[in-house]
Amino acid sequence: MNIAMTMSKPDLRHHLSSEVLSRKENPMKVVQRLSMRNSNMISLANGDPHFSLYPIRKVKFEVAPVSDEVEDPFMSWQNPNSPSISFSSSRSDISSKSLSSESIPLNAALQYHGGTGSDVFVHAMEELTNYYHNPPNHKCLNTLGNMDGIVKCFRLLANPGDNILADEFAFGPPTNAALSQGINWVPVRIDKGGLIPSDLEKVLSDWDEETKGRKPRVLYTVPCGQNPTGCTLNLQRRKEIYAIACKYDLVIIEDDPYYFLQYSDSDGDAVPSNLMPSFVSMDTEGRVIRVESCSKTIAPGMRLGWVVCSPMFYEHMLHLVESSAQFSHGFGQIFLSEMILGPQGWGVLGFDRWVQSLRKEYQRRRDHFQVIFDHEVASTGYASAEAPEAGMFLWIRIHLDEHPRFKLLPSRTADSKNGLIQGVPTIYGRKTNFLELMDEFFENCLNAGVVLTPSSVFALPYESSLFNTDDPLEDRINYVRATFAGPYETMEPGLKIVGQVLRDFFSSNE
Amino acid sequence: MNIAMTMSKPDLRHHLSSEVLSRKENPMKVVQRLSMRNSNMISLANGDPHFSLYPIRKVKFEVAPVSDEVEDPFMSWQNPNSPSISFSSSRSDISSKSLSSESIPLNAALQYHGGTGSDVFVHAMEELTNYYHNPPNHKCLNTLGNMDGIVKCFRLLANPGDNILADEFAFGPPTNAALSQGINWVPVRIDKGGLIPSDLEKVLSDWDEETKGRKPRVLYTVPCGQNPTGCTLNLQRRKEIYAIACKYDLVIIEDDPYYFLQYSDSDGDAVPSNLMPSFVSMDTEGRVIRVESCSKTIAPGMRLGWVVCSPMFYEHMLHLVESSAQFSHGFGQIFLSEMILGPQGWGVLGFDRWVQSLRKEYQRRRDHFQVIFDHEVASTGYASAEAPEAGMFLWIRIHLDEHPRFKLLPSRTADSKNGLIQGVPTIYGRKTNFLELMDEFFENCLNAGVVLTPSSVFALPYESSLFNTDDPLEDRINYVRATFAGPYETMEPGLKIVGQVLRDFFSSNE
Repeated sequence: MNIAMTMSKPDLRHHLSSEVLSRKENPMKVVQRLSMRNSNMISLANGDPHFSLYPIRKVKFEVAPVSDEVEDPFMSWQNPNSPSISFSSSRSDISSKSLSSESIPLNAALQYHGGTGSDVFVHAMEELTNYYHNPPNHKCLNTLGNMDGIVKCFRLLANPGDNILADEFAFGPPTNAALSQGINWVPVRIDKGGLIPSDLEKVLSDWDEETKGRKPRVLYTVPCGQNPTGCTLNLQRRKEIYAIACKYDLVIIEDDPYYFLQYSDSDGDAVPSNLMPSFVSMDTEGRVIRVESCSKTIAPGMRLGWVVCSPMFYEHMLHLVESSAQFSHGFGQIFLSEMILGPQGWGVLGFDRWVQSLRKEYQRRRDHFQVIFDHEVASTGYASAEAPEAGMFLWIRIHLDEHPRFKLLPSRTADSKNGLIQGVPTIYGRKTNFLELMDEFFENCLNAGVVLTPSSVFALPYESSLFNTDDPLEDRINYVRATFAGPYETMEPGLKIVGQVLRDFFSSNE
Repeated sequence: MNIAMTMSKPDLRHHLSSEVLSRKENPMKVVQRLSMRNSNMISLANGDPHFSLYPIRKVKFEVAPVSDEVEDPFMSWQNPNSPSISFSSSRSDISSKSLSSESIPLNAALQYHGGTGSDVFVHAMEELTNYYHNPPNHKCLNTLGNMDGIVKCFRLLANPGDNILADEFAFGPPTNAALSQGINWVPVRIDKGGLIPSDLEKVLSDWDEETKGRKPRVLYTVPCGQNPTGCTLNLQRRKEIYAIACKYDLVIIEDDPYYFLQYSDSDGDAVPSNLMPSFVSMDTEGRVIRVESCSKTIAPGMRLGWVVCSPMFYEHMLHLVESSAQFSHGFGQIFLSEMILGPQGWGVLGFDRWVQSLRKEYQRRRDHFQVIFDHEVASTGYASAEAPEAGMFLWIRIHLDEHPRFKLLPSRTADSKNGLIQGVPTIYGRKTNFLELMDEFFENCLNAGVVLTPSSVFALPYESSLFNTDDPLEDRINYVRATFAGPYETMEPGLKIVGQVLRDFFSSNE
């Protein structure tokens, strides 16, 4: 890295997709901004229904108490008779003195907004982001949850035919969604420690634009509790990956829903709650777009999140938001605003108390699950798994190479469409019959009454012809993903079945 | 229309965009469905955080009472001390007998869902849709509000370079959003009665694919209280337009946010509340996609709506939903489910009482606004407007042809980029200086402290070279849109300013 690159911010506008560059501002939002030119302006312009026309007067949420007096907020909350606290938002025309201190009145939250949402809501997102990441110079823009945020990043950064780098096993829905946009995936190897920096650099330095098309300029990665493998990047790898991004002019899409579910202490300093420093926290060049989610800290049905990115990416993402769902739903704006900033709300410190307590529970679940797994499944000798450092998944290796019907295929074959549940293109040249054995194992599990997620669902759907390799992904899909986020009651019965299915499967010669 | 077309449904799959056809199902949702193969199945597959991990115990909404005992729900509701009713959703583990009758427990509403959302939520959308439209054979799929629904229709039906028909003045945000997808707009003339069927047919029958590209296969239109012009299609025109759609194989995107704000009685029979029959209600061929909104009946901040379409379009739209925001937010699912189906909710009949009462208020607002307009603005002689039959806007013609500086341009000019606030391509060949005069008028209004929406914002952004006409849109942009949905207090002061600006403007010779 040269001095100029570290000292001044590069202009990254060449990363924007053609779609984004041809996108105009939502013209109504332009008029809306004009109407704020001075504070006395009377607007007859926008069709904003007056709040007296809403049939809703108040929204109230009963939530867990998180004050210092509650020793372990999560554990206390499990008693259905434990007290709750509440925050609410009311129509301001009926507010008494006591109500007027709510951080956002219902009228404002349920009205039309620009793509940013209401100011209070923006402030709430910023409070949380600055507390945990303190990014150099970034803005927060609302999304409808993690998936929406990621897909919008793809729209922001990729043209049809573009190549994007990702963990070789990755969460299927976003990588799948990108295919219809014409994006080609480029796998980067992962090991127990997550994405391997040297492999990332090798893919980039070896890239031949003649045969493979445009060099990848985007990396999509899950740094903590990687889904599905459960691995977490340590600080050293993060620094290396960021340096590679600067060297090769990559934008990093940091998809980090399991950030708060880290079970090992960080090796970074000065990060709250001993959490690992995020990519965005070290993003001096403005080349990280972090995708935030409320699904794991509050609930999946929130469908609320945000992206943290440079002002330049923010501006273009804003146009995209205003040209789709327009802004995040008012009920979610109320919830987040009142939770972080409201007089009855948790505040950032209260939020931190909740997530620290929550991750202890996830850690208990992980440990509980692992004990049962070792007893019921690993004990068969046909499968193994290590406890993940973060997230909610166990990545279970099925020892298919010890299966009686395991075979090395005699020569390279071109049956590229066989086996993968997604039905998307895969590499050819596999050397094992793992695909067939995994399909059989998955079906046996279903018949016995248990569902696991087969690793084939996560195998990055990449163009076989571009990555003909001696070590194809299809020879490493002997894994299943199991979660410990579900009901405690089903862990033991479920894993007992898996153990039995494995024993039967490995003793079947035909 | 031949007998075969009326008797059997045509296969409309050729309308699907390449993007949609290349889109795969969200693979996690496939696994989720497999896990429901039998009711005893234990799932360790999906990372669905157990509801005990949510910090929320209850959500409660205080809303307007709408029972028969309340004579005029809207008017009663305006008293801040009037009683409210409430509906709520609670975590089912703490529910007492009385709570268990809630239509959807919080656990279910805040969990992950397939793209359909929860079953109860689907049921609520169906109840409303069947009551008002009773479509022949259609399904309801959630969206994040009207704009999201429309943009998803464009993604469903159009490839880059496709031509789509629309009202020549149309709501800017969706038509603008479509440009970056590579859609070309094709304007259809409108008059006081809305889109002119004979013009629609003429555009289609005259279409020359050699010079104009692929014949349009989609019509995007707002049938009630058209935004911005306020006009409403009568039943006869609707029938003619639907017949043309069948004859020319069009799909109609029916964007109808002002459906409930109709002020004249319908000329159709058997439609509740004397509302005009919608296109989807007559859609025997499955070629209408109706886009529903809660923004005008409940509040814009709901960011919740749905599309009503044939099972075939539904299936592909579902994949699109599952590959973007995934499903509508839980708080909105709770609100709609409890409102329509919950034990404390309004039910469909209560909803109908609310919207009937609400439209009376809008009608009062319209009449009030019109009286002030006539007195303050029309009286100048420089502007005029007719009361709309539906919606929330007055479409005001500025009599620019009487302005002292009005001029006919000496010959056709090619300055196509002048004047339109959107900065998108416009037609050339205009014969008047309306653009310059309107810009000046708009700026004068701003300086005087009032914002109106200039019609240029709504002028369909279409390719000038394809529609060189003797009657260009730029010579008909002498309109502004004003709303009567805002605060009563600002109507008179705002319109007084408009009157004064007009007087000054029309007396300015330089």
